Amino acid sequence: MDKINLGRLLVGRPLETKELPHQAISRPVGLAVFASDALSSTAYATEEILITLAAAVGVGAAASAAGSVFGLSIPIAIAISILLVIVTISYRQTIYAYPNGGGAYIVARDNLGEVPAQIAGAALLTDYILTVAVSVSSGVAQITSFPAFRSLQPYRVQMAVTVIVLITIINLRGVKESGRIFAIPTYFFLLMMFLTLGSGLVQLLTGTLGTVDPESVEMFHQETVHNLGLFLILSAFSRGCTALTGIEAISNGITAFKKPRSHNAAVTLIWMSSILITLFLGITVLAHQIEAIPSHTETIISQMARTVHGDAGILYALTLAGTALILLMAANTSYADFPRLAALAAADGFLPRQLTYRGGRLVFSWGIMLLALFAIVLVVIFNASTTSLIPLYAIGVFLSFTISQTGMVVRARRIGRLKPGESAAGMETPLEYDPYWRRHMLISGFGAVCTFIVMLVFAVTKFTEGAWFVLLLLPTLVLIFFRIHRHYKDVAKALSWESVPPDTTPRPVKTLILVDDVHMETVRLVNFAKSLQHPWQAIHVGVNPEKSEKIVEKWQKRIGEGELVILPSPYRLLAEPIREYVESLQQENPGCFVHVIMGHLAMDTFWAQALHQNTAFIFNLTFAQMDNVVFTTVPYQIHRPSHAEMEAYKPDNEDIIVSR
Amino acid sequence: MDKINLGRLLVGRPLETKELPHQAISRPVGLAVFASDALSSTAYATEEILITLAAAVGVGAAASAAGSVFGLSIPIAIAISILLVIVTISYRQTIYAYPNGGGAYIVARDNLGEVPAQIAGAALLTDYILTVAVSVSSGVAQITSFPAFRSLQPYRVQMAVTVIVLITIINLRGVKESGRIFAIPTYFFLLMMFLTLGSGLVQLLTGTLGTVDPESVEMFHQETVHNLGLFLILSAFSRGCTALTGIEAISNGITAFKKPRSHNAAVTLIWMSSILITLFLGITVLAHQIEAIPSHTETIISQMARTVHGDAGILYALTLAGTALILLMAANTSYADFPRLAALAAADGFLPRQLTYRGGRLVFSWGIMLLALFAIVLVVIFNASTTSLIPLYAIGVFLSFTISQTGMVVRARRIGRLKPGESAAGMETPLEYDPYWRRHMLISGFGAVCTFIVMLVFAVTKFTEGAWFVLLLLPTLVLIFFRIHRHYKDVAKALSWESVPPDTTPRPVKTLILVDDVHMETVRLVNFAKSLQHPWQAIHVGVNPEKSEKIVEKWQKRIGEGELVILPSPYRLLAEPIREYVESLQQENPGCFVHVIMGHLAMDTFWAQALHQNTAFIFNLTFAQMDNVVFTTVPYQIHRPSHAEMEAYKPDNEDIIVSR
Repeated sequence: MDKINLGRLLVGRPLETKELPHQAISRPVGLAVFASDALSSTAYATEEILITLAAAVGVGAAASAAGSVFGLSIPIAIAISILLVIVTISYRQTIYAYPNGGGAYIVARDNLGEVPAQIAGAALLTDYILTVAVSVSSGVAQITSFPAFRSLQPYRVQMAVTVIVLITIINLRGVKESGRIFAIPTYFFLLMMFLTLGSGLVQLLTGTLGTVDPESVEMFHQETVHNLGLFLILSAFSRGCTALTGIEAISNGITAFKKPRSHNAAVTLIWMSSILITLFLGITVLAHQIEAIPSHTETIISQMARTVHGDAGILYALTLAGTALILLMAANTSYADFPRLAALAAADGFLPRQLTYRGGRLVFSWGIMLLALFAIVLVVIFNASTTSLIPLYAIGVFLSFTISQTGMVVRARRIGRLKPGESAAGMETPLEYDPYWRRHMLISGFGAVCTFIVMLVFAVTKFTEGAWFVLLLLPTLVLIFFRIHRHYKDVAKALSWESVPPDTTPRPVKTLILVDDVHMETVRLVNFAKSLQHPWQAIHVGVNPEKSEKIVEKWQKRIGEGELVILPSPYRLLAEPIREYVESLQQENPGCFVHVIMGHLAMDTFWAQALHQNTAFIFNLTFAQMDNVVFTTVPYQIHRPSHAEMEAYKPDNEDIIVSR
Repeated sequence: MDKINLGRLLVGRPLETKELPHQAISRPVGLAVFASDALSSTAYATEEILITLAAAVGVGAAASAAGSVFGLSIPIAIAISILLVIVTISYRQTIYAYPNGGGAYIVARDNLGEVPAQIAGAALLTDYILTVAVSVSSGVAQITSFPAFRSLQPYRVQMAVTVIVLITIINLRGVKESGRIFAIPTYFFLLMMFLTLGSGLVQLLTGTLGTVDPESVEMFHQETVHNLGLFLILSAFSRGCTALTGIEAISNGITAFKKPRSHNAAVTLIWMSSILITLFLGITVLAHQIEAIPSHTETIISQMARTVHGDAGILYALTLAGTALILLMAANTSYADFPRLAALAAADGFLPRQLTYRGGRLVFSWGIMLLALFAIVLVVIFNASTTSLIPLYAIGVFLSFTISQTGMVVRARRIGRLKPGESAAGMETPLEYDPYWRRHMLISGFGAVCTFIVMLVFAVTKFTEGAWFVLLLLPTLVLIFFRIHRHYKDVAKALSWESVPPDTTPRPVKTLILVDDVHMETVRLVNFAKSLQHPWQAIHVGVNPEKSEKIVEKWQKRIGEGELVILPSPYRLLAEPIREYVESLQQENPGCFVHVIMGHLAMDTFWAQALHQNTAFIFNLTFAQMDNVVFTTVPYQIHRPSHAEMEAYKPDNEDIIVSR
């Protein structure tokens, strides 16, 4: 039975439970692993601001007019950076309070209760899916911005889907030693970006910095041209806030760090935010200096890199490659986050329990496949356009920021009620007296208010562009989560010892065998039915009266014992007539088990099996709904006959219609 | 159990076998039903010729130079029309020879044997899939050519896929009285086309016919510019030959006509070909007069209609609508042809037998879904571009033409061997003496040679553009068909009475019950095992040692009889440890049946069921491969408890981990 197994080949050999990694990582590796999501957003955040502002630049407006409008991107980016600082300081507290990992779901569950926790859960799960869709779409846009690959632009959707499928396969394999391999793209990206920004700065200071030739780029096509008003500025601000996505990653992954974990994680968070702000502001300023043009055929990063490094430069290609790589890494982090959070919610009984099972390779396979499926659907619907996906994106991130920080406020308030030296258990991390609780509460509270306001701005300015969908989706998801929870409670109740008095007194068993034709498989069925030594009957569902007659004949000639009942079926249904017959049998013999037995032709290979109607599956579904009906399949293995056997075989004219 | 059933809602109530339609249709209805495929090809045939010729027109060439190159489309169209006349005359003979329907598959099987029949089958099945992909892609291109819908162009793939899904649902319902409804789009299309061509002619004669403004259309972008040589002309000719696709439809559907069937079908064929030639030549000439520009953003039909009827005219919109409609009808005919041919080949044992089953609505549901799946894959891969799909298309059509006509040659030769008045049976239609056999043979032979040459031209000129794929695919398919055939013969042999001596002497039965946790469902399992009255054992696969210990405890406390065996499983596998245990049991008790019983939590609804791991399925697969192992599921129905029951329920701490 040594077969080549496609699944095994793609996904690898199974791993033992004890092989779960318990490897602690250093700060530089931690930065690489957890920062890719946050840092990669600089690849599109500036672009999104410019695209929004482009609505105020009339088609064919003078370059100077366009320049002054696009110049607004700089104060907007500064405002976003300030918000980033606030959120960073607030999350630093969470890291110290939850050294075992303090994602929004855990903080909310611990401090605010089930409903806010499930809202945070729904928001985060949605955002992990969007991270994959947005990052892969932007990554593909970077690649197709490169002149040599520009002819691939019509295939962006197909490319994005292929990339998602590849990431999915890699993650189904499970990534061992992931940290160190992940470090390479992150640092490569940082190197290329700082090189580009640095060269740009030098060229700016020496007055040699070029600008983007407006003829070379097709400007983003905007349907309606607004006037430049507060709405547009807020709109640009909220789109730019995508730069903050991914900042919570470190607080989820504290346990991965070397001890002292919280301290190392907190330092890494500060590093990450500093780099993020530097990059984001640097890109925004440089984009303005080179008069970059928001476009859907060439990304801002591409325009920047080719202006600084030259059209044909290898550095241009490397910058784009680095950007595409870190975007893939960002998508990849969702493949760890989504399944882990889904497993957490599933263990709490709010998502299907299947999501808690680790597959053969120790990864949450169902979660990974679910994530891939939804991300592919999004990429296809939104044509792999980052700009179309963004309005769906940041709202959930800011909702989870708000919930998480509100949770921290409640926590600080509870700590405030403790007496000096007192502590309170019963939570994820026990509450301990802290004289600075007021300060913590203020910081978290201020963060919560800021992110809440941004969320509102986002919901209003992006409402018609897609935010409405998320605002509708999140409550729906929460409702579904609670219905699932109710279901599991119902099942536990139904299976509990108190619901019915247990009784295992033997009962009579009536055996029915389902007969499709009379051949060697039928012999096996009759053999098993006789071996059971309960009263038995054979049943044939007659779709075709001529065939039924032949079968009765064959039965008499070949089996010659027992009773064969023909049940007519003018609608060609198979399960219905049998169901009715079983019900009448149960009425005649109350309290008995009806034992339905059918054959199953088992082939050596999947493909051979696929050539047969696997009717057993349909019957299984039917009989599962009937009380006291037990369903049995008796397999009959078909092995390929040898050449000699086939040569010797003379088909019998009245023989074999293999219709199952 | 009166539930709303989504499948039923979409697909409709089941129909009785005797409801199969036996309605004869008149010539005008027959024309509408069978001609849509052939006539609709005029929507893209001219365009394909111009697109090929465009390669010889340099970018920015003078209009006069372009005009002279595009003028070649007229002689090419005339050559194609002559070919069409030849094929029509040849197929007219087939209609008389095969009054019960003479598709290429039947003619080849009847006259040439299994291999040519399967080649024709493979070619036709591939072409039916391509008909759907090409027609829907072209239909979507017509719609997005209309100015109001031009913004939908980036969504052509998604639109095409949606259309295919809709056609599929309609066909899964089955189309009753299809003929008369189908007549409307065909005649509407003809009306609009003759109106357009007629107006165009009048305008041409009165000197008021306009031309297409070259600024208004983006010319088809050609990577390499060839010189105008024989290769290019042949290439344009072979692309234009797509006009002939669908011409064989009538010979497939003779039985649908009123009596005298063959005569009515033959007359309809002549009508169809005449209309086809008129339309094709008319469109080609008019396209040349208006200086139409091959483009991938606006179809030739659209350019023609707006030049003749004016940009804003309702007639322009109606012409495009009519064209899109007949293209949908053409795609729809494949939904009848593909499943019918697949069922025919499946009945002969060359395709999976499932394809012969008519579903609840009397249609071949599997065939329909297979066709839809492949068509969607093609549309996605080729970006819904008619031009990219065409090189794959006509090669199979011409291959089946050639095979079918060669079959007719062989048939005429056989008739020539008969003596006057003599006839020979044993074929689909008995051979009867015919003094004109030589003439028939010559006509079919000439047709076969012509279509064979066109096929070669096609294979050579389109080889690098995709024909290579079809040339590789067809033999592969034929190989698969024969492997399937071999498999069914193997199974028949294995099940035949002579392979093993039948023996139904009762044998000992060892019962094993699989236990996941000890709750009310376990009680049912034990009850059934005891009712069978054979020796039994309970088995638990221990993935988690702590959980296993608890289960042993519960078993002793709650069941208190029988033996519970724990099988450790460090790799979290469920089936493997049980398989090994069963094997050891079989070695100890040779010749016994091992009867494995497991529980199945049966929920009221599909969604509730989906919340549970349906492990029974996995076990079924494992045990199916083991000789003399019988697998039984004992369902335990979970109904939703009432509110009062839930209120009264106090969960028992040591209770229930619903992990299955």
